[in-house]
Amino acid sequence: MTGETATTWKHRDLLDLESLTAEDIVAVLDTAAAFEEVSTRSVKKVPALRGRVVVNLFFEESTRTRTSFTLAAQRLSADVIDFSAKGSSVTKGESLTDTARNIEAMGVDLIVLRHPMSGAPHQLAPRVNCRVINAGDGRHEHPTQGLLDLYTIRQIKGRVSGLKVGIVGDVANSRVARSNLWGLRRLGAEVIFIGPTTLVPAAFEKLGARVCHDIDAVIGELDVINMLRIQTERISSNVFPSVQEYTRLFGLNGQRMRRAKPDVLVMHPGPMNRGIEISTDVADGAQSAILRQVTNGLAVRMAVLFLCSQAGGGSVHEASGRASGV
Amino acid sequence: MTGETATTWKHRDLLDLESLTAEDIVAVLDTAAAFEEVSTRSVKKVPALRGRVVVNLFFEESTRTRTSFTLAAQRLSADVIDFSAKGSSVTKGESLTDTARNIEAMGVDLIVLRHPMSGAPHQLAPRVNCRVINAGDGRHEHPTQGLLDLYTIRQIKGRVSGLKVGIVGDVANSRVARSNLWGLRRLGAEVIFIGPTTLVPAAFEKLGARVCHDIDAVIGELDVINMLRIQTERISSNVFPSVQEYTRLFGLNGQRMRRAKPDVLVMHPGPMNRGIEISTDVADGAQSAILRQVTNGLAVRMAVLFLCSQAGGGSVHEASGRASGV
Amino acid sequence: MTGETATTWKHRDLLDLESLTAEDIVAVLDTAAAFEEVSTRSVKKVPALRGRVVVNLFFEESTRTRTSFTLAAQRLSADVIDFSAKGSSVTKGESLTDTARNIEAMGVDLIVLRHPMSGAPHQLAPRVNCRVINAGDGRHEHPTQGLLDLYTIRQIKGRVSGLKVGIVGDVANSRVARSNLWGLRRLGAEVIFIGPTTLVPAAFEKLGARVCHDIDAVIGELDVINMLRIQTERISSNVFPSVQEYTRLFGLNGQRMRRAKPDVLVMHPGPMNRGIEISTDVADGAQSAILRQVTNGLAVRMAVLFLCSQAGGGSVHEASGRASGV
Repeated sequence: MTGETATTWKHRDLLDLESLTAEDIVAVLDTAAAFEEVSTRSVKKVPALRGRVVVNLFFEESTRTRTSFTLAAQRLSADVIDFSAKGSSVTKGESLTDTARNIEAMGVDLIVLRHPMSGAPHQLAPRVNCRVINAGDGRHEHPTQGLLDLYTIRQIKGRVSGLKVGIVGDVANSRVARSNLWGLRRLGAEVIFIGPTTLVPAAFEKLGARVCHDIDAVIGELDVINMLRIQTERISSNVFPSVQEYTRLFGLNGQRMRRAKPDVLVMHPGPMNRGIEISTDVADGAQSAILRQVTNGLAVRMAVLFLCSQAGGGSVHEASGRASGV
Repeated sequence: MTGETATTWKHRDLLDLESLTAEDIVAVLDTAAAFEEVSTRSVKKVPALRGRVVVNLFFEESTRTRTSFTLAAQRLSADVIDFSAKGSSVTKGESLTDTARNIEAMGVDLIVLRHPMSGAPHQLAPRVNCRVINAGDGRHEHPTQGLLDLYTIRQIKGRVSGLKVGIVGDVANSRVARSNLWGLRRLGAEVIFIGPTTLVPAAFEKLGARVCHDIDAVIGELDVINMLRIQTERISSNVFPSVQEYTRLFGLNGQRMRRAKPDVLVMHPGPMNRGIEISTDVADGAQSAILRQVTNGLAVRMAVLFLCSQAGGGSVHEASGRASGV
Repeated sequence: MTGETATTWKHRDLLDLESLTAEDIVAVLDTAAAFEEVSTRSVKKVPALRGRVVVNLFFEESTRTRTSFTLAAQRLSADVIDFSAKGSSVTKGESLTDTARNIEAMGVDLIVLRHPMSGAPHQLAPRVNCRVINAGDGRHEHPTQGLLDLYTIRQIKGRVSGLKVGIVGDVANSRVARSNLWGLRRLGAEVIFIGPTTLVPAAFEKLGARVCHDIDAVIGELDVINMLRIQTERISSNVFPSVQEYTRLFGLNGQRMRRAKPDVLVMHPGPMNRGIEISTDVADGAQSAILRQVTNGLAVRMAVLFLCSQAGGGSVHEASGRASGV
């Protein structure tokens, strides 16, 4: 089914979108499209990864992302285990590499890693033979979120190239914004980061995005509006006067939507603060693709797990000469 | 196997026993009887729900109930995931409905919901397409516990109709007592709530039960004695002088059992406080069905998961017109 | 495949190595050898325990041991559930036996028990019908760790009999040291406990080991060096002056390794304190079998789960006459 697509994908790991080509990204999206139908069956299973083992290695809790990866792996017939950092050898001072090598030594095929430190998956991947999927590293990237956003845009708009995508909110601290930026630009979309200067520094223009501090000035141009979740605790700590003011200046509500294109696509990575960055009528309205994003996350994560597990290439360990025992 | 039975069951959700008919309840018990044999096999599996996904959404921890649902789902070949409220988007202020709609968007078929708020499953069920099983809501109901108690009585006594069932203890705060009351009355049994006035208010007579404050006055009439778990922390907070006094006045021990019918059935929803509401000789004695209840819980929960997943009916969302995206 | 081996194994439970014969131990090692190949397949599954249910009942957290048992059970196609003590009926004052009997009543076949109390599995096993595997009890034994150490030694050295095995560190508090001692002696190896007098009391000689307080005096004789993990919190509490001094006197590093036999085998039960009891060059060096131990743990635990589940024998309950309900 996905045999032809898989031949264009060469990566053992998914660490970020910044280093992927447009062909790489399209390979994931096409594979996801082939898997999407599986989730609509009453028997939601394909045997693609039967007998393979996926470990969720989460150093930050994220029930939603972890659940999405778990369901994706189960739908591929893989076995899945959560290796929680809490109460484990990790709290006994073991390094990330030692923890991962131990997991690998148990015969695990793929590690899905969530880590508070930017770059943790990049540090780990060359040190283990099993495949590493980045499920969010610090403020750096969250590549499967970026891919599911691209998938949703392509699915509903029919294309990504040439679209104008506004990403609104705490861009400075958002790994979702970064992964979207790289993915959207690679596929030919224009990215506009929107928010107050404290959350959207002008320096982001160097990454290739437009920067705008007034949502009303650009909302009419946008094909897609992606509303980031506001961390209300961050708001109160000096970067913005109050949540109410944020909502008034940047929140997406029905009134503001009237200035937008009639077919604008509204997205949000979740969980939403209803009434803060997005109003309930918009979140549940006809333009909203928010639950579609969640559904597409399954297909995209199935594609990523499948493609990385199929990618060939010699053992990292053999290449690096690391001793694997006597 | 259960095809004929299933035709009489029309409900997408199991929210309570109060709203079920006698026919509904018998449909569950008969289906459970058909599933009971599965748990005695060495290969404890039937393919009834293969490829379906069950999520345990527990806002209160209950390892025992969760484990029973998980094993029931596995025995039907379903995939099961725990979506713990702790550390999830729930703690980030997301509403129950948004959490459940996100879970649903991932392709989940059944949500098993434990919630501290009475009525939470009733609020949720009409807002999602996936089926909702109430695994205990506040002080309201715990319908699968009620069903497994009915199943156990019918299994051992051969019938429910015409029996006198005493439910002893903290009835005022017990969802188990309420679910038993509705189920037992529907099937024609007489219910007698027994306990001190602080735990068994006279107002319960309006629900159709007899109320009695002296266990020794009625024990000789009872066909079944269901001993509720005493929350020792509640005892000390003014509703009763001391645990010792509770044990003396209402605890079931060998001496008190001598006044009971020789074939009286002793039940307890667990976990027991041995030596408080029930003595060890009675708990482990020949009249005790306490472990049988646990075993029957598996068959009953298999039946509930199976029947609700089979029940037809149009999409709630379509009926209610909720937008499901662009 | 393992039919012939299984005939020599008669035990329903694995509680310790002290009570096993050499034949028992060899039966496990030979069965593990037959299972080892499964973990190298892309489809890491055999149907040996399909439809059986394994419960991890852990009263102490140990992500690593629990993960190893879970993967082993999955590789045998069993269903696995974690029954965490936290938030369960256990915290409501239920006894270990009642908890286990409830789990058993749900149709569970094997309980993998980790408990802080020495002897807990021995207390439980005769009270339940399901099989009990000791995954570590207090300071007493950790039999599957002992077996995987024996397996690793036999795999690399070709034999166990006649070898000299040094076990270095906090022997007094180590269940790993005790299980190794019994297993190694049963198979004909000589055991030398090495460490400061506070951690290796002379009384251990009565168990049949040599006791030595100077690693440099014996390192040249050893065929195997098993470095125990140092609990740094224990060091600071009077049993040793400082971590630095421990490392200087007993830590295994490249310099000290030069006095060892060129083919000495270096082992560690993990997680390692790199730079304390073992240096990084030794841990990752050519003599190290540390990751091999982790890999072998899977095969050994598959063997133990399989053999115990196959072992016949009448119901304990029937023999002991315990009432199982009406």
